[in-house]
Amino acid sequence: MDSAALLDLLGNENRRRILRLLARKPCYVTEISEYLGVSPKAVIDHLRKLEEAGIVESRTDDQRRKYFHISRNLRLEVNVSPYEFGTKSAYPASRGFDITTWRYLTLDVQLDDAEEGTRELASELRELEQLENELSMAQRWVQGRITEVLDELTDDVDADGDSRLYADVLLALADGPKLVDDIAADAEAPPEMVEQVLADLSENGLVERVDDGWTLGD
Amino acid sequence: MDSAALLDLLGNENRRRILRLLARKPCYVTEISEYLGVSPKAVIDHLRKLEEAGIVESRTDDQRRKYFHISRNLRLEVNVSPYEFGTKSAYPASRGFDITTWRYLTLDVQLDDAEEGTRELASELRELEQLENELSMAQRWVQGRITEVLDELTDDVDADGDSRLYADVLLALADGPKLVDDIAADAEAPPEMVEQVLADLSENGLVERVDDGWTLGD
Repeated sequence: MDSAALLDLLGNENRRRILRLLARKPCYVTEISEYLGVSPKAVIDHLRKLEEAGIVESRTDDQRRKYFHISRNLRLEVNVSPYEFGTKSAYPASRGFDITTWRYLTLDVQLDDAEEGTRELASELRELEQLENELSMAQRWVQGRITEVLDELTDDVDADGDSRLYADVLLALADGPKLVDDIAADAEAPPEMVEQVLADLSENGLVERVDDGWTLGD
Repeated sequence: MDSAALLDLLGNENRRRILRLLARKPCYVTEISEYLGVSPKAVIDHLRKLEEAGIVESRTDDQRRKYFHISRNLRLEVNVSPYEFGTKSAYPASRGFDITTWRYLTLDVQLDDAEEGTRELASELRELEQLENELSMAQRWVQGRITEVLDELTDDVDADGDSRLYADVLLALADGPKLVDDIAADAEAPPEMVEQVLADLSENGLVERVDDGWTLGD
């Protein structure tokens, strides 16, 4: 689902409390209402929004009581930095996901799941939770380093306004010479604006004209 | 800062649009107000909340115009699954962070930052962005696998209600025998509730009593 819609949903404390409760066990409306100290009407309204977003589902038991539970895995990431406000929401990658094709990253986890007993499952769970922590630290490290690199890049440029666009143009040229239109497409900016940026960058010697486009300066 | 406070702030579309704008360049109130089509009064109110949270700062230029910019790096992660509603907010790890101590993860990135030219910085930026994507995929994979392991663990248990607590108790025993109070502390649940869970689990042969505590069954 859309990150914006997800943030709108999660921006409400009572909806977060409902999700925290449902993550522990399936519940019916009266239970949630009593636990939260919120009217059943308000709980029903929150549940309806969560259901419409596909986060929550209900099922009815033998006593015709309707239980709500969280229906799916999803993950939201928000990065805020002087150069970025990025939101990303994603469903977990499928099990068949080929981690051997990753270029920068090696995961040293036992993926053998034949004959798993409780002991093996519990150890695997512990390893996965540690791995999750490490990945999160790695992401924080990468985010910090990206900010440092952008700081260094934009220091060279001496641009007032939109320094991120200068960095995006340099980034577009990182894998070789390109035409203005291709740079503009990569940097998600109008070609005229990119022409101006390239002119500024070439004054500082950071880019150079080549036959049919631009390249990074030496 | 607190994840809940951050979600409350980000749960507003206009505040997200302000952050997206400030991530491209520092702006003054009138600029933001015109861009968003929102009254200066409302913009000032949003900026005040963002400033109080330490996300945004202002500085005044030679013409006494007050520019706002994003003041720091931060990162928010939300995991939603049938077993978890977790939010985590964090500042980026410091540069000196020792990635060689990670046990499960190897990052193969050039960390050499002597004599960096524009070309090297632009390539590094591209690598970092790819790495960021891979880490994000890795986390989605881990999250999916954690759900699978919890599915398998709780299938064995046949618990109604709070199946996550059963898994947390098994998880607490993954690294060896423990006393009830220590298990309760790990699982963040009252000792009496944990005693009941241990009794249920021992009926299924999943845990066993030992001298002064409990251990996983064979």
